[in-house]
This record gives sequence, C-alpha cells and structure tokens, in this order.
Amino acid sequence: MNIVTISREFGSGGRELGKRLADLLGYDYYDKEIIATIASRHNLDENYVEHALTSAHLHVAPLTFKHSFSSPMYIAAPKMEILLEQKRVIDEIAALGKNCVIVGRNADVLLKEHDPFNIFVCADINARIARCIERANDGENLSPKAIKKKINHIDKNRKRTRFLISEKDWGERKSYHLIVNTTDWNISSLAEGVCEIVKNWYKDKNS
Amino acid sequence: MNIVTISREFGSGGRELGKRLADLLGYDYYDKEIIATIASRHNLDENYVEHALTSAHLHVAPLTFKHSFSSPMYIAAPKMEILLEQKRVIDEIAALGKNCVIVGRNADVLLKEHDPFNIFVCADINARIARCIERANDGENLSPKAIKKKINHIDKNRKRTRFLISEKDWGERKSYHLIVNTTDWNISSLAEGVCEIVKNWYKDKNS
Repeated sequence: MNIVTISREFGSGGRELGKRLADLLGYDYYDKEIIATIASRHNLDENYVEHALTSAHLHVAPLTFKHSFSSPMYIAAPKMEILLEQKRVIDEIAALGKNCVIVGRNADVLLKEHDPFNIFVCADINARIARCIERANDGENLSPKAIKKKINHIDKNRKRTRFLISEKDWGERKSYHLIVNTTDWNISSLAEGVCEIVKNWYKDKNS
Repeated sequence: MNIVTISREFGSGGRELGKRLADLLGYDYYDKEIIATIASRHNLDENYVEHALTSAHLHVAPLTFKHSFSSPMYIAAPKMEILLEQKRVIDEIAALGKNCVIVGRNADVLLKEHDPFNIFVCADINARIARCIERANDGENLSPKAIKKKINHIDKNRKRTRFLISEKDWGERKSYHLIVNTTDWNISSLAEGVCEIVKNWYKDKNS
C-alpha cells in the first residue's frame, strides 16, 4: 500500500496538488471526508470538528451541534478527544490497504508506521493571498489584510496542533520527503513532476 | 537559458543529484570548477579559496599559496574579495547563455535576476554521516562523531556565509522552489523525478 500525505500552508494550493496527484496516480483521495466522518459519527457539526482540530488550544468550546446541546459529546468532545477520533478514522483508511493521498490532518505523523511519502506545500504570502481571493466563495469578500491575518492565524494553529502530537516540526525540512513552493507555479505541471517522484520513490522502496 | 541551482547540507548527496540532473537534462555542470577558476586567476590554492568561501568570518588567514607568501593576494584576498570574485565567475557562467546546473556557491542568490530554479538538498544526520563514511577518500578515517562535528561546522558556516549575501535564509523553505530530503533515497531515481519537475517548470515559464 502506498500512502502520500500532504501537509500545507493555508492558501498554498496543497489541496489542489493532492487532488491532481491522486488523479494522476489513480489513488484514493481523502481530505474533508475525514472531518465529515468524525462529525457524522459523533453527531457534531463539521465546522466544529474542523475548528477543534485546528484550534491552538486543547479545550475548545463547542460552536454548534446538529441535534442537541445535551449530546454526550458536548462535554466529551474537547480537542484531544477529536484528535483521537481523527487518529481512529485515519487508521481505518490505512486498514483498507488501498493506495491513497491524504491532505492535512498530520497524517504523516499518524501513519508513520506505514512509511508514507510526505510532502509539504508552501508559497510566498502574496501568492497565497492572491490564491485565496481567486478562490473565495460567493459572498466571501475579505480584504487582503484580513486574508493575511486569517492565513497567519490558521498556520499558527496548524503548527501548534502538530506540536501536540509530534516531535517533528510543522514545515521543517527534515520532517518531509519533499517540500514544494508553489509561488508562480502551475500546480497542474507541478503535479506531473511530483507524480514521477512519488512513483520512483515507491518503485525503489518496493524493489 | 535555464539555470538550476543546488544548495545542500554537507553529506546530503546534493552534488550527486546535481551531476545526475545535469546529465539527464543535458545541461552544463559547475561545482568545483568555480573554485578552481578563482584559485587559478589569483594564484591561490584551491583549498584556501574553498576555506575562505565557507568560513564563518569575513577575514580568513591564508592557509597555503601555490607560489609565494609575498603574493599580493596574501593581503588582498580576505573572504569578501573572494566572494566578489566568485560573483564575477558565476556571472561569467551565466553570460555564456547556456543551460546549466550550479552546485553550491549561493548561485540562487547571485543569479537571482536570471530567475533560476532553486533546489535545496537535505538529509537526516545519520544518513549524512553514513554517506560521508561511504565516500571517504583513502586515508581519510574519521569517526562518526568527528564526521558529525565536521558536518555541523560546515553547515553552520554555509548558513553564515549565506546570511552575509542574502536576506533569505539558508535551507528555509521559502528560499527555494523545491526541497528534497535524500534520507533512504536512491539519488538516481530521485534525479529522474526532479528532472521532470524542472522540465515542467521551464515549459510553463517559457510558454
């Protein structure tokens, strides 16, 4: 089983790279599906799960619940619980034994024993702001300054969450096989090259 | 003209990657040739030039000279002078207008206006120690502990030299297009994948 994990700075195009890579390699693709599974199993709102997993703090006040505030998860779903559930979901994905690309969720750390190929995606702050503006949903109309603040806030939390579960730093070069800087880069072309690298790595490993 | 620069941690296999990449791409290759040119032009010993360029200090005491201690370069060749000469030599290489791979020498910074494709090569410390032992010259018989000390010393100096000439940090992910970690990696296979990435990058850029 070949597993490719993608960690990324917010707005760097890591998700697009992951999707294209999964298409080119013919691998399964996991991203928001993990959040949706956790939310569905515990009757939690997806936004709450996402917020809990990326918040800097271990204890997160619940935002919304699908059904009722008397849900046992109201008390029992602080960040650590959700992190553990996330680990279970990711372990279940690995247990399927199918080649896959997993974006985010510190899957590189959680699936360490499966020896995944780990990619980190980054980009200059201006490229990331431009990308966020280009891809904003209808009605989402943040100023570049506000987007920059959001990017820095999310990345700070990703860094802290990683620190909770691993001794290897988020975005530090030794923690990954490959770091790609997508500034001024066509992600479609990049994905083709990265695809060759991943294929060669697994060819060597399995030979 | 396509220029690929390779910066690297000592012992990470950056030179081998650079050579293989130049072969695969059919590009010219520059590494020790730059040191040899500086040494030859100024009647200096190659080891002295290498030492001066990687020393942490701006003023370097001369080690040996090919001809005489009364050479004008005895006084006139502190690190900054040699750094400037290195810039001239690298500019001359670029002025040839031919596709090339340049290993080391902060060529990514010095040739910034040519918009090179910049790669950083790293590896875990144990992989680097093993590589140094495997490739030691006859008679060179350092203990793993001594090799580790040498690696850390050289990298510290590379970092400091970079700091002298650039605001972008050595080995920092935003300073490069690609960072590859060669730990447990067959560099020959890696070079094939990196070759595809470089080709795609230049295809996009020149289209």
